Amino acid sequence: MEIVFASRHESNPLEWVNALQQALPEHRVRLWDEGGSGRADAAVVWAPPAELFVREPGLTHLFNLGAGVDALLRMPDLPDGITLVRVEDGGMAVQMAEYVLHYLIRESRDLGRYAGLQAQARWQPLDDIDRDAWPVGVMGGGVMGARVAQACAALDYPVAVWSRSGRPVAGTRAFSQDRLADFLAGTRVLVNVLPLTDDTRGILSRAVFEQLRPDAYLINIARGDHLVEADLLACLDSGRLRGAVLDVFSREPLPSDHPFWTDARIQVTPHVAGASLMSLTVRQIAGKVRAVVRGESITGVVDRARQY
Amino acid sequence: MEIVFASRHESNPLEWVNALQQALPEHRVRLWDEGGSGRADAAVVWAPPAELFVREPGLTHLFNLGAGVDALLRMPDLPDGITLVRVEDGGMAVQMAEYVLHYLIRESRDLGRYAGLQAQARWQPLDDIDRDAWPVGVMGGGVMGARVAQACAALDYPVAVWSRSGRPVAGTRAFSQDRLADFLAGTRVLVNVLPLTDDTRGILSRAVFEQLRPDAYLINIARGDHLVEADLLACLDSGRLRGAVLDVFSREPLPSDHPFWTDARIQVTPHVAGASLMSLTVRQIAGKVRAVVRGESITGVVDRARQY
Repeated sequence: MEIVFASRHESNPLEWVNALQQALPEHRVRLWDEGGSGRADAAVVWAPPAELFVREPGLTHLFNLGAGVDALLRMPDLPDGITLVRVEDGGMAVQMAEYVLHYLIRESRDLGRYAGLQAQARWQPLDDIDRDAWPVGVMGGGVMGARVAQACAALDYPVAVWSRSGRPVAGTRAFSQDRLADFLAGTRVLVNVLPLTDDTRGILSRAVFEQLRPDAYLINIARGDHLVEADLLACLDSGRLRGAVLDVFSREPLPSDHPFWTDARIQVTPHVAGASLMSLTVRQIAGKVRAVVRGESITGVVDRARQY
Repeated sequence: MEIVFASRHESNPLEWVNALQQALPEHRVRLWDEGGSGRADAAVVWAPPAELFVREPGLTHLFNLGAGVDALLRMPDLPDGITLVRVEDGGMAVQMAEYVLHYLIRESRDLGRYAGLQAQARWQPLDDIDRDAWPVGVMGGGVMGARVAQACAALDYPVAVWSRSGRPVAGTRAFSQDRLADFLAGTRVLVNVLPLTDDTRGILSRAVFEQLRPDAYLINIARGDHLVEADLLACLDSGRLRGAVLDVFSREPLPSDHPFWTDARIQVTPHVAGASLMSLTVRQIAGKVRAVVRGESITGVVDRARQY
């Protein structure tokens, strides 16, 4: 196979090319250049240029470096015949789980307040935790959602998972798509790990926030377009939500004059909750390339109708 | 049985008396008063007054509300014949595990640095995590230490546990007492959950810090007297340690002019990493009281020679 690596966002594309070539010595791996060779069979991409599909008409497989393929599916020139493959985990799930735990524990254990008390040199133990007062609701029951949910459950938080299928995740309560209201009514810490699709765009809205338990907290680590930003600010102002941590935004980088940066109720991180780690991702893609060559089926293939 | 509740630190002693009485309706539970009744068979204590042992000579069992019995063992009037029982877990282990996770993740994922970048409205993704660069070493392999260690291992951190027995903890490497140097050489995040004994007092010292991996981090959630404070400050100044989170101190409350309060490399919390939760602790003590009455053996009995 000839495999082209094409990314408009990766700062070290040659590192990826070298790592892929080393993992697949029997294939040819090269960096995308504007001309293209016209001979590529597969591409490994993250925000690829539109010209890729014009210059490389022979592509049969597209390996996306992230789990979210929403941007890829919006590309007008994406040929129908290409098999899209998303990264499955690649080290992301455990990163997302620990990211969520960090902010969950910060709230449930008052560790942000203790930092404020330290700044005043005040020794003031606050109330002990009542774990039942911190039910966590995870939207999304795939590899990421399940790992996040299980990490919270392992610390004895009550955990519910809402997913299309309602597939059970060990140690948590499962809610299928039609039981959103029940799921929200029992949730105080809402964690979004959904894929971005036509159904889920804007789902983090006032209508959803108002169904949560009082003094609720939002953790969005999926996509910025899941969130209606004005609704978040309104629900923080009304006291419906106590705070939020946001890793993803409709515009990235988040513009420096955006109100989220200076809002003390909002923690901002720059889309780092779950990164595809090169070594794990390369190993996964190499394994799938070999399976394709052997004519075997592979997992992680995107269902275009479902949009993930 | 007549059971007396005696604590100099508990702000709501009557709540404990009522909870214990409700859990043990067949026994008499009362609050310690300075006279004593002279008829108590057992006492539930947290930092009890010395007069307790003079006024209640019939005590056979002393149930300590915490896991650490170091202060109790230092009381000069403590009669030899009393069976000391420490709380086993009581909801503390999971609290300690999540407390440790919070600060571990803050360091390994740069979440403190991201908070600083937010204050400058700067979008700047930092390096991805290399989990192997964050080996965690837990000192203490009891109920608390094992739970802390397993929580870190569940997030795929390399974890080692150093304990007297070297008893294995699933998913971690076990080191027995004589292998301290090997344990330290592989540790970057050092978590102390040891009991305070003559052997462990002052163990968190320069000699130990200098054997850790570079850029090490200390988490002390056991007792303040485990730490040589001057050594911590010297190792922070020399860059041997990158930071520390301290929940316990030689003097508590930590005096308001203590340098730890204002040191940006040190996070201070007011002895809250693991609190005995009333409901779980009461249930545990009630079960043990009934076992004693039935003549059965109980767990959690302190070995005075071992000091825990």
